Amino acid sequence: MASTSTSTDDKLTALQAILDSMPPARAMQIRVQGWHADRLRLHAPLAANVNDKACAFGGSLASIMTLAAWSQCWLQAHTADWSADIFVADSQIEYQKPLYEDLVAEAWLDAQSQWEDVIRNGKQKGRARAVLHARVMREDGESVCRMQARYALIATT
Amino acid sequence: MASTSTSTDDKLTALQAILDSMPPARAMQIRVQGWHADRLRLHAPLAANVNDKACAFGGSLASIMTLAAWSQCWLQAHTADWSADIFVADSQIEYQKPLYEDLVAEAWLDAQSQWEDVIRNGKQKGRARAVLHARVMREDGESVCRMQARYALIATT
Repeated sequence: MASTSTSTDDKLTALQAILDSMPPARAMQIRVQGWHADRLRLHAPLAANVNDKACAFGGSLASIMTLAAWSQCWLQAHTADWSADIFVADSQIEYQKPLYEDLVAEAWLDAQSQWEDVIRNGKQKGRARAVLHARVMREDGESVCRMQARYALIATT
Repeated sequence: MASTSTSTDDKLTALQAILDSMPPARAMQIRVQGWHADRLRLHAPLAANVNDKACAFGGSLASIMTLAAWSQCWLQAHTADWSADIFVADSQIEYQKPLYEDLVAEAWLDAQSQWEDVIRNGKQKGRARAVLHARVMREDGESVCRMQARYALIATT
């Protein structure tokens, strides 16, 4: 079990390094917070993502959800040893209420899909599609916004 | 005509000050580029908004479109001397192609609406809804992504 745990830590460290290499993610101060039960969680402080009304900026909410879902795809491809570029194709976002706390986002694969199938398709055909969901939640667990988005995973040439 | 022009410049300066007061917009280095024919245009350098693939980060594209549409609402309310808080309620974004240039976004009101009606509703009822469109375009004018979003304008109490 120790080796599995270390392996997961290594993946999350590699993911954090990718996020840190992106100036907008670095400006948002996004940190990988965990990856449990196929849910990837990111954190960003409110201070770096606040709007003119002292709550979280809509664009930062969109960004952290987009990155959480992207990170989930990246981790799955990386775990399956498949080298793929990952692009967001489209997204629908619903902003439900203002957030006056730090941003915590989690992302997960649509319930009608399995990562095994997505990755198998990708390895066979060189590309795959995945529908992801994400939300930003308050400390009490209540969602403040949610996203559904399609991602394209394309084998690195 | 000179006074009208100065007045528009004053509004765009006030808008820029609001954007500059928001840490995420400041980090994206967003500049108000112009406001013509009821289209508000924002600019942000690629370097501050680049992803791991050397093109514009999807979250930054979402952010600049969300801000361009928000700014359009703010300018209309400000011009009509109506003090309102403006919130994005939902958005649908389509990412059409990667962008390897600076980000230039423009936003405009849905063709089925008139700003006069939105503002009149807002002043009468204390709140109004508006459907906005936005896009990010390349220097050659081609769109790389587009957004449709609903905004709520609520009278400041």
